[in-house]
Amino acid sequence: MKTIIVNGIVVTMDSQGHIYDRGYVAFEDGKILETGPMEAGMITEDAHILDARGGIVMPGMVNLHSHLGMVSFRGLGDDCKDRLRVFLLPMEKKAMDAELTYLSTRYAVAEMLLGGVTTVVDMYYFEEEAARAMDEMGIRGIAGETIMEDPTCDSPDPKQALAYARTLMEHYKDHPRIRGCAAPHGTNTCSEETLKAAWTLDREFGAPFTLHTAEMDYEMTYFRDQYHMTPVQFLDSIGVLDSSTLAAHCIHMTDEDIQLFALKGAKAAHCIGANSKAAKGVSPVSAMLAKGIAVGLGTDGPASGNTLDIITQMKLCADFHKNETRDRSAFPAKSIVELATIKGAGALGMDGITGSIEAGKQADLVLLETESASMFPVYDPYSALVYSASPQNVDTVFVDGVCLVKNKKLVKADLAKLRSELAEKMNRTEFGKIKKF
Amino acid sequence: MKTIIVNGIVVTMDSQGHIYDRGYVAFEDGKILETGPMEAGMITEDAHILDARGGIVMPGMVNLHSHLGMVSFRGLGDDCKDRLRVFLLPMEKKAMDAELTYLSTRYAVAEMLLGGVTTVVDMYYFEEEAARAMDEMGIRGIAGETIMEDPTCDSPDPKQALAYARTLMEHYKDHPRIRGCAAPHGTNTCSEETLKAAWTLDREFGAPFTLHTAEMDYEMTYFRDQYHMTPVQFLDSIGVLDSSTLAAHCIHMTDEDIQLFALKGAKAAHCIGANSKAAKGVSPVSAMLAKGIAVGLGTDGPASGNTLDIITQMKLCADFHKNETRDRSAFPAKSIVELATIKGAGALGMDGITGSIEAGKQADLVLLETESASMFPVYDPYSALVYSASPQNVDTVFVDGVCLVKNKKLVKADLAKLRSELAEKMNRTEFGKIKKF
Repeated sequence: MKTIIVNGIVVTMDSQGHIYDRGYVAFEDGKILETGPMEAGMITEDAHILDARGGIVMPGMVNLHSHLGMVSFRGLGDDCKDRLRVFLLPMEKKAMDAELTYLSTRYAVAEMLLGGVTTVVDMYYFEEEAARAMDEMGIRGIAGETIMEDPTCDSPDPKQALAYARTLMEHYKDHPRIRGCAAPHGTNTCSEETLKAAWTLDREFGAPFTLHTAEMDYEMTYFRDQYHMTPVQFLDSIGVLDSSTLAAHCIHMTDEDIQLFALKGAKAAHCIGANSKAAKGVSPVSAMLAKGIAVGLGTDGPASGNTLDIITQMKLCADFHKNETRDRSAFPAKSIVELATIKGAGALGMDGITGSIEAGKQADLVLLETESASMFPVYDPYSALVYSASPQNVDTVFVDGVCLVKNKKLVKADLAKLRSELAEKMNRTEFGKIKKF
Repeated sequence: MKTIIVNGIVVTMDSQGHIYDRGYVAFEDGKILETGPMEAGMITEDAHILDARGGIVMPGMVNLHSHLGMVSFRGLGDDCKDRLRVFLLPMEKKAMDAELTYLSTRYAVAEMLLGGVTTVVDMYYFEEEAARAMDEMGIRGIAGETIMEDPTCDSPDPKQALAYARTLMEHYKDHPRIRGCAAPHGTNTCSEETLKAAWTLDREFGAPFTLHTAEMDYEMTYFRDQYHMTPVQFLDSIGVLDSSTLAAHCIHMTDEDIQLFALKGAKAAHCIGANSKAAKGVSPVSAMLAKGIAVGLGTDGPASGNTLDIITQMKLCADFHKNETRDRSAFPAKSIVELATIKGAGALGMDGITGSIEAGKQADLVLLETESASMFPVYDPYSALVYSASPQNVDTVFVDGVCLVKNKKLVKADLAKLRSELAEKMNRTEFGKIKKF
């Protein structure tokens, strides 16, 4: 049976920038049939009708970079100088296992869905478990198995991690929503051989080649001292910088790096919340966009950016880039919503199936209510989304036409239960020894 | 009858930084009686018990700078370069009147209460109407009548604006929650005579002397060209910089300005959201705090920062200042919560009555639920408040012990009705001619 969302402010994010007020979106069997301004007689008995009551209907948002298995780290040593080595790596070694990854990813996906994210790129360990959690929760996602030179919590060496990734990618290669990929940890935490092997594997499966790039000061120093190159130049020099590359962070990009990205068609996941909280600087996104580079938004993991919704990132993105460029007209709200939706989808090569509301695309849809206090008046729906909205405005979410959030609650799962199962597991690990409130 | 909030994470913000987990707060007749860890037998029948269910109980937040009468401007021309002159000033001249100020302020106060703000400094026109709205809504507030050299929507000249302010201040001088003040618009939009007259009037009533300071590029240029001074030096030179001064924005502060603030005991309202969105730069708050200057947070008006809650400002404040100082340990979460509460109260000389949970203070209290997805786990309640919370986590709010928000809804008013009355009025003004969604 057909579903029609009616009486919405339909922000399509199509290439003409259509907004239909009041508009409708009709979908069936997971696919959008049509969208447009409301017409007389369209509410019929052979369709399931959802009244948007003047709320904003937008494409599901795309989160290009996260570590969903890390919910149990959220808020741990947030303001500690060398947090990665003091808190994150030791706890990962001691506590992380398949079950914790599964339960954490399930909870993280719930949080993302409740905040309007319908597509996510994950990058962590035990990604078979992450993929299973994503699948069960109904989100669209890419499960990136992290490949690293050092032993990790799921693989003693990169060879075994690559083998794990291959199995995962085989497993999900025909799945309608989930795919696997081999995700090298970073430019300087993998050998040249490992980077090439991961890239070759990703190419075999047509998967994105995603890794941390130009994020850390010491990463920049390492490549300068070792190779007289930037990390981006290094990736290019070994032949793994191309249109399948989805580089996370891209903070310390030189003009030459940006040229290389544009030339090779590489993509960037911009994680402004995590980067600024970690005092790492602001990625030169305006320069990248000016060169036509596909940039989308990422939350980073819950240990880094703390929240997993893209609405929070949109506001941060606008404020940081306007301030950075000293131009209040820079990065107008519409351009930010593009990063969150159609450009994010484009960075994954998935803009043919998601990222905008257009006939033929999958029905990945979000309805935000405009009844909350800050959502009045609405002169410009893009402004309202970027400057006034919060993740709790998300009322209803569909992925592939399946309703996963309704009235601000999960439809197929119970958040409190997901939380108590995660908490119970955490208490059986090293996390149980840390004081929690 | 006594009320006891039980089973909370009580973040007191007292000088010793006490957190009681699980703790209670008892209050009666508007005043806090006691707070501490839960004890056996404390839940008795002669008290009204509110179960916090593990949520965070914190002092009500302080919003040091706003223009509450401007809700009808929110989202209008957000990304326009010269927005002030293109949109704001002309619409203010055409549409603003006493009734619109009243209805807008009432709505804005509702929004603030729902976001956990219990004390606000307003600065706009028709402040008798703003004060009335604040009084009716139950918030604690200072209604600052704007004094300007140019004719405004409520006064043809500064003399009449000052007379208006005097009447307002007389009217509210014995009110338990509301006070008036004479608020000069800015350092360069008032004559020296007007600044002095406003300051003298504020001194007569013991009111804060609040004005826009060191906010605009052209303000800096004007004082440099005209006086070879900064605006702050100018204020000092005419004798109006003292411990009653609450300077809003303070973006372009020199080291000498900061020295002067410290010497004179002047205070700053930091509006990071509005400043960054307007691409104006980041106020040197760490330098000000290092000199012992009282700094609190402000949202600025709904046309500038779009949201009116302080939780959103806390996250922006942390992210911007950590990034600015390139130090992730700078501005730890606790220091940000201080700005939002006890330091904000201190900037108003009101830290004897609000801003922390301590026996003898007024019961200005906020309960945030920790059941929303992003509020798990809680290793550190300050981190949870700054990095994970959103205004919609606010569940219950008391001002002077009166419950104004319960279960995330206004207790004494209906948000939809406040909105429809505001919308109906807007439609009878110039705002009615602008397309709204």
